[in-house]
Amino acid sequence: MNRKLKMGMIGGGKNAFIGAIHRIAANMDGLIELHCGAFSSDPATSIESGKALFLPESKCYASYPEMIRIESQLPIEERMDFVSIVTPNFAHFDPAMMALDHGFNVVIDKPMTLTLAEAKKLEEKVKETGLLLCLTHTYSGYPMVKQARAMVANQQFGSIRKVIVEYPQGWLSNLTEKDGNKQAVWRTDPTKSGISGCMGDIGTHAAQLGEYISGLKITQLCADINIVVEGRKLDDDGNVLLKFDNGANGVLIASQIATGEENSLKIKVFGEKGGLEWHQMEPNTLIIKWPDAPAQIYRAGNDYLSNAAQFNTRTPSGHPEGYLEAFANLYRNFALTLRAKIEGGIPTAEMLDFPSVADGVRGMAFIEHVIASGKSDQKWYAFKI
Amino acid sequence: MNRKLKMGMIGGGKNAFIGAIHRIAANMDGLIELHCGAFSSDPATSIESGKALFLPESKCYASYPEMIRIESQLPIEERMDFVSIVTPNFAHFDPAMMALDHGFNVVIDKPMTLTLAEAKKLEEKVKETGLLLCLTHTYSGYPMVKQARAMVANQQFGSIRKVIVEYPQGWLSNLTEKDGNKQAVWRTDPTKSGISGCMGDIGTHAAQLGEYISGLKITQLCADINIVVEGRKLDDDGNVLLKFDNGANGVLIASQIATGEENSLKIKVFGEKGGLEWHQMEPNTLIIKWPDAPAQIYRAGNDYLSNAAQFNTRTPSGHPEGYLEAFANLYRNFALTLRAKIEGGIPTAEMLDFPSVADGVRGMAFIEHVIASGKSDQKWYAFKI
Amino acid sequence: MNRKLKMGMIGGGKNAFIGAIHRIAANMDGLIELHCGAFSSDPATSIESGKALFLPESKCYASYPEMIRIESQLPIEERMDFVSIVTPNFAHFDPAMMALDHGFNVVIDKPMTLTLAEAKKLEEKVKETGLLLCLTHTYSGYPMVKQARAMVANQQFGSIRKVIVEYPQGWLSNLTEKDGNKQAVWRTDPTKSGISGCMGDIGTHAAQLGEYISGLKITQLCADINIVVEGRKLDDDGNVLLKFDNGANGVLIASQIATGEENSLKIKVFGEKGGLEWHQMEPNTLIIKWPDAPAQIYRAGNDYLSNAAQFNTRTPSGHPEGYLEAFANLYRNFALTLRAKIEGGIPTAEMLDFPSVADGVRGMAFIEHVIASGKSDQKWYAFKI
Amino acid sequence: MNRKLKMGMIGGGKNAFIGAIHRIAANMDGLIELHCGAFSSDPATSIESGKALFLPESKCYASYPEMIRIESQLPIEERMDFVSIVTPNFAHFDPAMMALDHGFNVVIDKPMTLTLAEAKKLEEKVKETGLLLCLTHTYSGYPMVKQARAMVANQQFGSIRKVIVEYPQGWLSNLTEKDGNKQAVWRTDPTKSGISGCMGDIGTHAAQLGEYISGLKITQLCADINIVVEGRKLDDDGNVLLKFDNGANGVLIASQIATGEENSLKIKVFGEKGGLEWHQMEPNTLIIKWPDAPAQIYRAGNDYLSNAAQFNTRTPSGHPEGYLEAFANLYRNFALTLRAKIEGGIPTAEMLDFPSVADGVRGMAFIEHVIASGKSDQKWYAFKI
Repeated sequence: MNRKLKMGMIGGGKNAFIGAIHRIAANMDGLIELHCGAFSSDPATSIESGKALFLPESKCYASYPEMIRIESQLPIEERMDFVSIVTPNFAHFDPAMMALDHGFNVVIDKPMTLTLAEAKKLEEKVKETGLLLCLTHTYSGYPMVKQARAMVANQQFGSIRKVIVEYPQGWLSNLTEKDGNKQAVWRTDPTKSGISGCMGDIGTHAAQLGEYISGLKITQLCADINIVVEGRKLDDDGNVLLKFDNGANGVLIASQIATGEENSLKIKVFGEKGGLEWHQMEPNTLIIKWPDAPAQIYRAGNDYLSNAAQFNTRTPSGHPEGYLEAFANLYRNFALTLRAKIEGGIPTAEMLDFPSVADGVRGMAFIEHVIASGKSDQKWYAFKI
Repeated sequence: MNRKLKMGMIGGGKNAFIGAIHRIAANMDGLIELHCGAFSSDPATSIESGKALFLPESKCYASYPEMIRIESQLPIEERMDFVSIVTPNFAHFDPAMMALDHGFNVVIDKPMTLTLAEAKKLEEKVKETGLLLCLTHTYSGYPMVKQARAMVANQQFGSIRKVIVEYPQGWLSNLTEKDGNKQAVWRTDPTKSGISGCMGDIGTHAAQLGEYISGLKITQLCADINIVVEGRKLDDDGNVLLKFDNGANGVLIASQIATGEENSLKIKVFGEKGGLEWHQMEPNTLIIKWPDAPAQIYRAGNDYLSNAAQFNTRTPSGHPEGYLEAFANLYRNFALTLRAKIEGGIPTAEMLDFPSVADGVRGMAFIEHVIASGKSDQKWYAFKI
Repeated sequence: MNRKLKMGMIGGGKNAFIGAIHRIAANMDGLIELHCGAFSSDPATSIESGKALFLPESKCYASYPEMIRIESQLPIEERMDFVSIVTPNFAHFDPAMMALDHGFNVVIDKPMTLTLAEAKKLEEKVKETGLLLCLTHTYSGYPMVKQARAMVANQQFGSIRKVIVEYPQGWLSNLTEKDGNKQAVWRTDPTKSGISGCMGDIGTHAAQLGEYISGLKITQLCADINIVVEGRKLDDDGNVLLKFDNGANGVLIASQIATGEENSLKIKVFGEKGGLEWHQMEPNTLIIKWPDAPAQIYRAGNDYLSNAAQFNTRTPSGHPEGYLEAFANLYRNFALTLRAKIEGGIPTAEMLDFPSVADGVRGMAFIEHVIASGKSDQKWYAFKI
Repeated sequence: MNRKLKMGMIGGGKNAFIGAIHRIAANMDGLIELHCGAFSSDPATSIESGKALFLPESKCYASYPEMIRIESQLPIEERMDFVSIVTPNFAHFDPAMMALDHGFNVVIDKPMTLTLAEAKKLEEKVKETGLLLCLTHTYSGYPMVKQARAMVANQQFGSIRKVIVEYPQGWLSNLTEKDGNKQAVWRTDPTKSGISGCMGDIGTHAAQLGEYISGLKITQLCADINIVVEGRKLDDDGNVLLKFDNGANGVLIASQIATGEENSLKIKVFGEKGGLEWHQMEPNTLIIKWPDAPAQIYRAGNDYLSNAAQFNTRTPSGHPEGYLEAFANLYRNFALTLRAKIEGGIPTAEMLDFPSVADGVRGMAFIEHVIASGKSDQKWYAFKI
């Protein structure tokens, strides 16, 4: 297959934040090219956006249904290989279903859908079609997160006992949505965002990261869910006690009213024999702690790292990679898997290491359970799908 | 009053950990001298310990009742001014009551007593006698903790919305108490330590620090209290959701099974207008966060700090002070207050800034509530004394 | 100009390190596409490399002279817009001269040439042709480096008094070149690398960074240049005292035998009124120091930053960018400038902010002076071009 | 010897900075008591100062000659055991000589004397009398500095190749001495401070630390010595290239005009097999770097540390010690050595680990050589005593 994979983008027009990020990420490794797009629900904006990205006008579609329909009628080698859905939450499900129904693989931003019910339907559709779905839980794309996961899986810390994941942001400390901040507007609007604000937007990242690194599953939670800024309709803050399937306990803190914080996702995991700590804002460092020996500073790009970490790195040690590279790792692994499938090969475990529709279902279940727990007087709330 | 204050120590004999710390702290500023002691429940050990500290044999008492009785009969200028009680929890109440009854001021390690009931009796006794009691919540003695408190009190962050305090240690990751670790033995023994292990030992520090800095009071809690290491009788780990009297929410995490952690007490406080972060293991730095401006690194020893911070500092900026100096600040402020009282003066607010019997009662109430909440199926548990 | 700019690459075939970095950087912002390449001096390798990059075989040239000749005969809209030269030092000058002579703009890795004489000829050629040359001093592409430069230029620190720049690496601590490390082999070979190893490879980066941020020019130097690992032919370590044109003093340390260091470029600049500190390995943070106020943590992606910093950022604060993005900033600014030129517009100051042929001449002069100083018994050695 | 050692202090009266530090340090471990003092050249101030320290008036001497004379006539058990000289540099030599002549051991602040000639005389006198002299190079008292030294001595890094020590302060960025800052006044006055300001005050610390950790001796230097602030008479800044006796190279940077820096002494040492890094402002951490393995974070108070580090620690890991404890280690080791001598025992290597008169001579030689080198046009200047 001597060509790049072709991406059709849904959403991500002018002024959108995450669409540009997706394009950089998809573009990073020379495996994917932007082939076409329906960049906005407004046809004129869509076309204008596509042209600004140097797409020929014929590839700037007025709407995603049009794009999917027309592309699906092109010869296989000329049509898009997958869609990338970068719209707000409420506009994930329909295009994803339609894309799958027309034989297109899907990359989709998180949270996967508006409701758990939608998520389950999407999961069934993925199973039915046998197509790929990649959910962009960016933080699991960092090499040092993969190192952490590998060390846990490799039993270097023994049985895991405690997981603490915190994700404070401060950008919603005020009623920013009233000042026209586009990101704030839809994220705080139940019709666009779903039943949760903060927990859906970043709590799901924290939960996915905690499960991804620890290899454990949350089985119970006890949530304190808050609307701190007066006049807001969705939660902007929350603290959650966790129990995992091996009996480990945990804490998940997510807040968008942690004034002065940028995007300070941190995780600590403790096992019988050692512990680990990782900070998203200094992502190339992973601290490993031992009871009777000095802590160690694992750094990206070094030969002593696991295959998983090395596979997801582009630069030598000391040449920092960041958020965009983590994001690009999702696209790259998805692309490598897709290529392998197209070429009739078998994707390796490293290639398959990207969040899938099952993560999406789990994320939506997390949202529904954590919000329900927040409303409940019952202490422990079972988390099951 | 042209002399040092005279301290009589109860506990802290050979091989004791915290007794030596108390002596260094008391000794640091040249305001207090070790006058006498009943360093052990074993008379021979007590005397041997006192002699190793260069006390004359006449000042090495066989027991604390003897010490209190004999000292109380000496002329005022020749007898001890206060006792310092550095025994395990179960041996706090009786000597404190006896000392107060004989007219001696008291310094006492935390948690203050074995039970809340004892604590309340002690509080009554303090009120009745008009004597001073200083409870050694060390961490509130750090200058940058005082800076944090001052900035909150001064409304620099607006109304406080969220308090996150975590206190992970790893030293009880194994059943250390079976290996004869003296500190572990009594701390994990209900008859010596009371109804709680981890929450009593370090959870109380975390709670006190959170309230001290935020100026808020915990009003509700929801606790997950765990015995992680099999075979242990008392909690060695716990996570607690908090509500404060102004409506703020919080999280308190305390663990002694966080393998590889040393003594990593950290606190973050967020208000409407800004936030703060302090780490005990790098105590001379306080990070202040703003929504629209660079974060600031406040450092001990600088002229730009509050009076409270400057009053509790001995060295110029860049010359780090640590745990012993924080501990010494408690003794120093207690000593300055006591001197002022003896001299008939009025202690300043800075002098009076040391934890008191009220903190001790609050700490014991915290222990009883947090353990009760841990056993309860009810989500929110009211915290009231 | 409704298309991406077309890049022809010289060097960067299979197993090359820096070629892949250049491609990612060029590719990052969707402004440039890989159009053709002569990826190796071996024609078969060149073609194989190009095909692996999904180039049509017709665009995989057997040699750079062939590429330049053939491309120059294509219609303007079909031929490459610029060449990117990513070969070892000794193979920079000839292709750059030939490209310019055939009307192609040039991106070139540093150090620019093998000798100062070559550099001066290249500078003349650039002036003569009026074409653009971008020299990839990556570190000046970081947003927080631009912030530092802007604050100095804006007189926020007053007159600059001292510049300390250190660049320790450890990868040449052993005689790695004997183990077949391809990067080590040519960098330690005078015929490939020129008269200097360490000073040419990373000392030039440090010198350029120091001058870029401080806005000053080195006027004198006093160098201690060392070959630490026995059997090596070129310097692998050096320490240099500096004087700048305003009288400021400085120190430049560059080493490739700093065992255990990754790529730890750091700079500190002190002025009358304040100071700054930046570490390449945590590049999104810039520490600003004041004499009578808390230090400040400037962070990439924030609105309070200078235009220059914001212009060179892709992600919101807290979403770390790294080395590849810094590198991409050079390509992006070069591309924006080139587009503006092609479209007949006037590039803005932000667009023009990439290292030029003048930096390349200065870098080569630095190498020749620092090596000469290292051999001299004279203390201060004038640095002039 | 069942008593504390008795200290007589020379200097350190009201408003003095370093005297109070010395008293806290001497006092810290309960081995030394303040016995008497001549705290000021002004008799009234001396007596007032002593009384404020709770000394009986009979022990507050009007002058140090009086103190030495009178004390020397007391019975051995009643007189001071040693003097501690905490005056400015110019007032070190005479009292030290007189104390030694009268049989008193000496603790003395650095730099040891005003001139190298004085230092050599003092060294002879120490040898002649067989008494102890402890020079308070504080930074060598830190446990993690001792750990660093032990690991180098233990060949864990192989042969040392490079030493980088930097000591930036900012407090003399302005002409502070004109504003009546008492510390600044004498330190910038040649009659009080000697031929050097910055190099004498802090350059000597840096040099001593570099030699102490590396176990090497400086043999050549090439100095750039600067008076940056106009109107000042002594150097306030300097950069020095170094050669060591094993052929290693080094850099020493000391500055008091590094605006915004507090007391940021840092050292990096690189050997064939690894490297180390220590920062005085976070002194309980020592970073150890390896070429093929993760860096390690050695932390004070842990069992995995060398005897030397553990011997100089008072608190468990995670309970930070600081500058005062480092200072106290000098006094403690001096006191333990003196006790051993008095009791007729043999001090252990750990006890003897405090800077001696030989360090003092070396420090004065450093000052004279570095200033001479600064004035010389010759590049390398031999450093020999």
